[in-house]
Amino acid sequence: MSLPPEFAFIARHFRPLAGPGALGLADDTAVFDPPPGRSLVVAADAMVQGVHFLPDDPGDLVGRKLLRVNLSDLAAMGATPLGYLLTVSVPPGLPDDWFAAFGAGLAADQEQFGLSLLGGDTTSTTGPLVLSLTILGHVAPGAALRRCGAQPGDGIWVTGTIGDGALGLDALQGRVPDPGGVLADRYHLPRPRLGLVLAGVAHAAMDVSDGLVQDLGHLARESGLAAEVFVADVPVSAAAQAARAAAGAGWRERVLAGGDDYELLLAVPESAEQALGETARRAGVAVTRIGRFQSGAPSVTLRERSGAVLPLERAGWSHF
Amino acid sequence: MSLPPEFAFIARHFRPLAGPGALGLADDTAVFDPPPGRSLVVAADAMVQGVHFLPDDPGDLVGRKLLRVNLSDLAAMGATPLGYLLTVSVPPGLPDDWFAAFGAGLAADQEQFGLSLLGGDTTSTTGPLVLSLTILGHVAPGAALRRCGAQPGDGIWVTGTIGDGALGLDALQGRVPDPGGVLADRYHLPRPRLGLVLAGVAHAAMDVSDGLVQDLGHLARESGLAAEVFVADVPVSAAAQAARAAAGAGWRERVLAGGDDYELLLAVPESAEQALGETARRAGVAVTRIGRFQSGAPSVTLRERSGAVLPLERAGWSHF
Repeated sequence: MSLPPEFAFIARHFRPLAGPGALGLADDTAVFDPPPGRSLVVAADAMVQGVHFLPDDPGDLVGRKLLRVNLSDLAAMGATPLGYLLTVSVPPGLPDDWFAAFGAGLAADQEQFGLSLLGGDTTSTTGPLVLSLTILGHVAPGAALRRCGAQPGDGIWVTGTIGDGALGLDALQGRVPDPGGVLADRYHLPRPRLGLVLAGVAHAAMDVSDGLVQDLGHLARESGLAAEVFVADVPVSAAAQAARAAAGAGWRERVLAGGDDYELLLAVPESAEQALGETARRAGVAVTRIGRFQSGAPSVTLRERSGAVLPLERAGWSHF
Repeated sequence: MSLPPEFAFIARHFRPLAGPGALGLADDTAVFDPPPGRSLVVAADAMVQGVHFLPDDPGDLVGRKLLRVNLSDLAAMGATPLGYLLTVSVPPGLPDDWFAAFGAGLAADQEQFGLSLLGGDTTSTTGPLVLSLTILGHVAPGAALRRCGAQPGDGIWVTGTIGDGALGLDALQGRVPDPGGVLADRYHLPRPRLGLVLAGVAHAAMDVSDGLVQDLGHLARESGLAAEVFVADVPVSAAAQAARAAAGAGWRERVLAGGDDYELLLAVPESAEQALGETARRAGVAVTRIGRFQSGAPSVTLRERSGAVLPLERAGWSHF
């Protein structure tokens, strides 16, 4: 008795990714015992061809990015990955090879980040490829970091460098030079900051996916505070600096509002700065203070070194 | 500080659905404590406009069907619903009213089935509307029903009636009469069979979504058994019978292979038939034995009352 084509497709590309609990993807559901005494953390993110990734992006990079943007949500909560479910809506004509690469990319990142596929669904669509991933993780009860916990006086910190993802998209589309491919790599492969121990260190956290300004706005609104950022303190990579001349007047806005960074944005009290530095050093992740939260109506203010307020025409990326 | 349009959309249509653990959809992730001492069950199903539902289908019915096809997966495992995550990829021009109805449909079914929204993601797409739902439930450890557990001699049982969903689609597309709208209703609104207590009663279970013959093939293959069905015993509704003349020669194949039934398919030993009858009676769900599993190479054989084998040209629905 042979398998219908849809199930052969699943067996070929997805069964090798299935971990404990997935029941070999032979059933419609996965069954597993959650780690005792831990809270569960769940998140879902979808990616659409032509919106979140380029039509020519190779399958392995798309698979890894899809998993990593979801891992970044777990990192922002201080959670440990457990597994994921995946639905793919496949347009006509996408070659089977593309999915072989997609599966290989997922396999590599499963190994690196310590999780496996639990289940999912495969359907056809007449439109572009749509990928939806739900991730599960766990965290000590009460230890999950939220957006609403920032306190007046907390420093605003970011991991890594800001702006590389947006400039990487510009580089892939030929708008800025990227001789070493560093920016393109940052666009294709986010680095989820899972290695940091942030419980008891940060009061609030989220990941920067829609642009620093917009995402800081979420932290400010949810915490009921005014956020002030000194633009000159925002960490920028050498590759992003090198692209500055070619990018022209829009460079600073691309860095501050461009999105696709997948760095963490943290609210950290002065008393925890040493602990933050230590966990960052152990994880090999740079952390930089870029401003401070203060009492006041929820807002984001960007300042030059002189104190002058910098207007931003476009605060960030919204899908509608 | 106002919300970007994407977030206002989420606040308007999805925040009212958020339950405990969803953190008001203010964070990217949900956090909750799983029921102690229970195994978790997770499943995901996607639905694409024009593939899984008609472009003119009202939003409330699409929302309810999306949730119910996932609830049906939990029912097949004998699990209790806990919550769900939702990603929506929205084409240009779909009116806001459609999503208001979609949210209202989900709200009604959340109430009926006792679960709530945990999180998700909203994106744009240039193609048709794509909806992906991940459902979480729980079950006593070791009690989850799987496809691979059927034993030689087990009766093959189904809940409810078979074929109404496929004939409902035919009715909505004007191919068969449906004076009372019964068939269309069965296509739009599956009835997940969550009320049955099947642990210790059924050896194996799955839900019938891709057509009785194809799905029975999955049970047969995963259990390593030959399945024999007496076609005259397959329960068919009065509405489906009434559509028989109009549907012509293809009627029987539509019933047996058409899909969208969302009834349960069960392998039940004779010793548990009385218990099955009792839980079915309490739940108000009809159950019917339609055949038997036997030792032999995995296969599905359909027989007439005379014993003659009935060939089926098209064994079921596959998306590729």
